[in-house]
Amino acid sequence: MQVGVFGTSMVGQAISGKLAALGHDVMVGTRDVTATLAQTEPHPFGFPAFSVWQQQHPGVRLGSFADAANHGEVLFNATNGSASLAALQLAGATNLNGKILIDIANPLDFSRGMPPSLSVCNTDSLGEQIQSAYPDLKVVKTLNTVTASIMVNPGLVADGDHTMFVCGNDAGAREQVSDWLRTWFGWRDVIDLGDITAARGTEMYLPVWLRLMGALGTGMFNIKVVK
Amino acid sequence: MQVGVFGTSMVGQAISGKLAALGHDVMVGTRDVTATLAQTEPHPFGFPAFSVWQQQHPGVRLGSFADAANHGEVLFNATNGSASLAALQLAGATNLNGKILIDIANPLDFSRGMPPSLSVCNTDSLGEQIQSAYPDLKVVKTLNTVTASIMVNPGLVADGDHTMFVCGNDAGAREQVSDWLRTWFGWRDVIDLGDITAARGTEMYLPVWLRLMGALGTGMFNIKVVK
Repeated sequence: MQVGVFGTSMVGQAISGKLAALGHDVMVGTRDVTATLAQTEPHPFGFPAFSVWQQQHPGVRLGSFADAANHGEVLFNATNGSASLAALQLAGATNLNGKILIDIANPLDFSRGMPPSLSVCNTDSLGEQIQSAYPDLKVVKTLNTVTASIMVNPGLVADGDHTMFVCGNDAGAREQVSDWLRTWFGWRDVIDLGDITAARGTEMYLPVWLRLMGALGTGMFNIKVVK
Repeated sequence: MQVGVFGTSMVGQAISGKLAALGHDVMVGTRDVTATLAQTEPHPFGFPAFSVWQQQHPGVRLGSFADAANHGEVLFNATNGSASLAALQLAGATNLNGKILIDIANPLDFSRGMPPSLSVCNTDSLGEQIQSAYPDLKVVKTLNTVTASIMVNPGLVADGDHTMFVCGNDAGAREQVSDWLRTWFGWRDVIDLGDITAARGTEMYLPVWLRLMGALGTGMFNIKVVK
């Protein structure tokens, strides 16, 4: 498939690398291609600059947000939550409409220091803001509840025996994305939470995720829903 | 032990019933003893009126919030989150100070209909508000992430193989409460999330809990943290 991935950081790299390895035709979108390629220092969080990463993943092309949106039959939002709406505006409604957007972004606000708070929550969510701005886009929120490497390889923890959530207004898109989560990435337990307002719940899970990372001393964990 | 439990609803009944069965001397506190005893109809959520419940639990006494606070060597806040600060004010600082308060309340706001939103979140929490109002009280937030029957009997789901969180500013109190969770109720996996600001995380987990209840068709579930 032709896949467009917005965002060149850790999540964008994980998604793009995995899909390219599966044989998909991936283009990553960024705000400023020249500026992205000029950056060569590792990110403070430890992942490589995109230009360095791309040398190991020559099949993954880089373009503008509009290029990547136009390229993709399916789209991933792997930008920072604070930059997501601006990125989608640059992608352009005509390049987005009618497609499935798998929204992985979290509205983390680092402006008041650590730990981050959420820039939107409780009675609204980033997933809803995106859906509301682009009514003809099929937004499916998922994967935002685990660290990047687990998104595309759930077997890295507890033999993959843990849970992923999907939500979105289009039932067919939720089902399609759930199927991709299983076949592309290996998720076995995918729970459909219903319409996009459930993104309030999965985004508001981030504060306890951050505290768990602190308590466990690692981001390599997830939760399993048990009955 | 002498235990004071604030709140006569489902959570107060579960905690009080279990602790009385274990041989503890339990007093439940309410705003208006006469009004509470006059109520005989089941709650819309399905649990019995306290007066009816008490007939099956004659060892559990009912008193004012101040009576229960004065009675307890350890205290449980099992009130509605919207009523918690008022309840503690009626309990009285002199009856509270120096004691451990196990805070189970969630700041659910039903005033805008279903699903409820949170009346405080993101940069503050009910747990923090209580701790801030009573600096000499040792607030430990826990148990608010599961339905009442699971709080006191985690074995009801998945043979008890799932996770409970504790947080609070006093490390000794967190350790004591973790021990009580294990010995009184049977919790095996208790994760210490650190100071009371982690209550933001465990309270903000409620929206995804509510969506999971809808998706699973039951409140009889929990999450297990897996590494």
